[in-house]
Amino acid sequence: MTPEEFRRYGRQVVDWIADYQEKVESYPVLSRAEPGDVLADLPAHPPERGEGFEAVLADLDRVVMPGITHWQHPAFFAYFPSNTSGPAILGDLLSAGLGVQGMLWATSPACTELETRVLDWLAELLGLPAGFRSEGTGGGVIQDSASSAALVAILAALHRADGGTSGRDGITRRHTLYISSQTHSSLEKAARIAGIGAANVRVVDVDPATLAMDPAHLDALLTEDAAAGALPVLVCATVGTTSTTAVDPVPAIGAVCRRHGVWLHVDAAYAGVAAVCPELRWVNDGLAEYADSYSTNPHKWLLTNFDCTAMWVADRAPLTGALSILPEYLRNQATTSGEVIDYRDWQIPLGRRFRALKLWSVIRWYGAEGLREHVRTGVRLAADLAARIGADPGFELLEHHPFGLVCFRPRWDGLPADEADAATMRLMERLNASGDLYLTHTRAGGRVLLRMAVGAPATGPEHIEAAWRRVREEALAG
Amino acid sequence: MTPEEFRRYGRQVVDWIADYQEKVESYPVLSRAEPGDVLADLPAHPPERGEGFEAVLADLDRVVMPGITHWQHPAFFAYFPSNTSGPAILGDLLSAGLGVQGMLWATSPACTELETRVLDWLAELLGLPAGFRSEGTGGGVIQDSASSAALVAILAALHRADGGTSGRDGITRRHTLYISSQTHSSLEKAARIAGIGAANVRVVDVDPATLAMDPAHLDALLTEDAAAGALPVLVCATVGTTSTTAVDPVPAIGAVCRRHGVWLHVDAAYAGVAAVCPELRWVNDGLAEYADSYSTNPHKWLLTNFDCTAMWVADRAPLTGALSILPEYLRNQATTSGEVIDYRDWQIPLGRRFRALKLWSVIRWYGAEGLREHVRTGVRLAADLAARIGADPGFELLEHHPFGLVCFRPRWDGLPADEADAATMRLMERLNASGDLYLTHTRAGGRVLLRMAVGAPATGPEHIEAAWRRVREEALAG
Repeated sequence: MTPEEFRRYGRQVVDWIADYQEKVESYPVLSRAEPGDVLADLPAHPPERGEGFEAVLADLDRVVMPGITHWQHPAFFAYFPSNTSGPAILGDLLSAGLGVQGMLWATSPACTELETRVLDWLAELLGLPAGFRSEGTGGGVIQDSASSAALVAILAALHRADGGTSGRDGITRRHTLYISSQTHSSLEKAARIAGIGAANVRVVDVDPATLAMDPAHLDALLTEDAAAGALPVLVCATVGTTSTTAVDPVPAIGAVCRRHGVWLHVDAAYAGVAAVCPELRWVNDGLAEYADSYSTNPHKWLLTNFDCTAMWVADRAPLTGALSILPEYLRNQATTSGEVIDYRDWQIPLGRRFRALKLWSVIRWYGAEGLREHVRTGVRLAADLAARIGADPGFELLEHHPFGLVCFRPRWDGLPADEADAATMRLMERLNASGDLYLTHTRAGGRVLLRMAVGAPATGPEHIEAAWRRVREEALAG
Repeated sequence: MTPEEFRRYGRQVVDWIADYQEKVESYPVLSRAEPGDVLADLPAHPPERGEGFEAVLADLDRVVMPGITHWQHPAFFAYFPSNTSGPAILGDLLSAGLGVQGMLWATSPACTELETRVLDWLAELLGLPAGFRSEGTGGGVIQDSASSAALVAILAALHRADGGTSGRDGITRRHTLYISSQTHSSLEKAARIAGIGAANVRVVDVDPATLAMDPAHLDALLTEDAAAGALPVLVCATVGTTSTTAVDPVPAIGAVCRRHGVWLHVDAAYAGVAAVCPELRWVNDGLAEYADSYSTNPHKWLLTNFDCTAMWVADRAPLTGALSILPEYLRNQATTSGEVIDYRDWQIPLGRRFRALKLWSVIRWYGAEGLREHVRTGVRLAADLAARIGADPGFELLEHHPFGLVCFRPRWDGLPADEADAATMRLMERLNASGDLYLTHTRAGGRVLLRMAVGAPATGPEHIEAAWRRVREEALAG
């Protein structure tokens, strides 16, 4: 494709996206495709000869769009938001256009140094500890996901716990990891990947009311495991759990970790970016004193399209110790000098895209002011929704909703527990099938609850009102 | 950013990229930035108020571009190419614009089904075994990198070797992994990540002339390790090593793996896509009979911008067995039905972008014909370069150059070995500092060689000629 053709088709694609942004509301939120529908509409064999880009765009509309669930729809409440925004899309486009690969500082210094600076900016915007900034022993890096950030944290923690050996050679002690029943499943997955084993993932009790991790039980488990000869490696505390946005008591958990010499990873994938607002900065409690590693996702609620997980460590030595290997063909003067960061040593893959461009674009376009306004809008809309639910005697509400997630369900007066759960699931399925909104469920306090996560940039008060009206209607109809 | 603003800035960015494509040759290939230069030009603090997108584009030119090493420059020969192309950029742009997240089939059916179909297309284009196609027990998936593909293969192999347990709970036997000295460093890194340990990575001898893995030595090591009570897990054979594009004898290695019941992973990250040309389809030898998993990178030499590693397995059960976890909030009818693929169970992270769009765009725009032409151009230009080097009595050439990589160096007649190596390094550093071309080095057969990897879409015969002229001049000047 020549530069001239790229100009022409590029404009068509930009217009296609702008049109999509304008009409996203006209689509059913949840795709109505059945398994195999999209496959059946795609040719079984690749073309022998090239086609024009118009043909791709035509098939995008005809074949792909019916199979799209619209994450940017204002009535998408199913999962935590996966925000995209104009400046993020354009930052990503510039990254694709430049086509550089930032595995080493030397392979494009700007790719590394812009990332370092933008992560320092984000740390400042969120009021994160000074120790996370690049000028000290710590630093930030963009990972593809909070799952990978958790895995990387575990590998760094293993490296530190094992006294700096590589890949735990010769270590025969059992390693243990600490989560709660509310911790994201990626922690158990990471423990399996890292060879710790699912059986060595210890599940700490939660407070039945708040669903927050119990530091006393954590302390007891750590003591018990160490006494039994195990080597406790990492505790994961969560700020804003996936199920109900529960908040683990990081300061108390951190004090226990300190006492036992265990790595503290704080997973604030969804809620961490809320700290851009001073009134929500309590989400950082305990980080400065206790956190060894921390992650939050601008690709959820901070207007930066997936993938963009921001991860910081207080000390980068165990991280690079765990993940660095230098074969001859990657050796270069800058790396050998020790004066530069090679981000390949901070992550699982070797290659990496220039993802800092999109985060840079977002922060510059919106400014601190605009980012705060976006988060505040989500919190305010969620509070409005919760107020409506709380005022309705036919519904029960989970009182804890400090961010954008609201959990609730009809009271189903008179129904036994399992029938009430089934009725809640049927209600959700009817709502989702309607295409008017999309929500998910969870199980908390022994019952099934509906989850409505507010935070898509397109969502306004009118969408909250319409969604709540639909939920009530449908609950009455069921 | 409103849709109207997006249209306006989108056009500016498209034009910026088209301009860049037109003038990429005018930049020094290797950035002249010193450590800290880019950082020093970036404000220490994020903006309080949002700025216009013009300001971002202005700083892109002023601050970022001097720190860019130009991977798309026609004289970029340093690493294997990291191709980008118009249709790939536009496919990626569409993915960013849609902003869907394909962790589950249900979260956008088209994101999953287009990926399945496009990987089947690519398997057909490359003449890969029928068993890799989605209609049988196998299937393909897009990973971010060959590093992650190798890690995922190891996890699947561990799962199978341990009889289907999760995370090797209770397994106390030592696990072993088999590579050669020429295998990519990501395999050792993956072994460390997966808890196998660097000490349990066994290095199989290579033939000193071809640098290909010796199947007889592999057999001996496997026998020895099993006798010592270890559990051999995976053998990695490479088709087109990073250092010199050596090709391991996959059929013979596969027969050894079969006899020992060990998983065979074939890493063809760079060279695998060459199979799009029938005359290079020998790179697939042994796959149909023996390979349990296989990966190749359209993001290297097949015109699809990073990240896009294509990975296939002959049996998807151990892969999903190793990587699947289903918490309540991800439970949905489609997943429970077993009728759909949830690609989150095929990879490390949970979230995933709609990367199939760019591969689809590339295959449709170029067609089989265009892809073959691109690979053939690279092979032909490399052969031309090798012919020039081979005809020059002042240079020695590594005779093996079946793809786009040519390894060589001046003869340095009369210099002792270590001085010849140092002179070669100095030659490379002078060439790279000139900005006229960018190449790297490796160590093979006990000596330092220069590596010139041809394959950027912009590279033509004139760039090969100019590069060779510069190398000769500079070698004479040294």
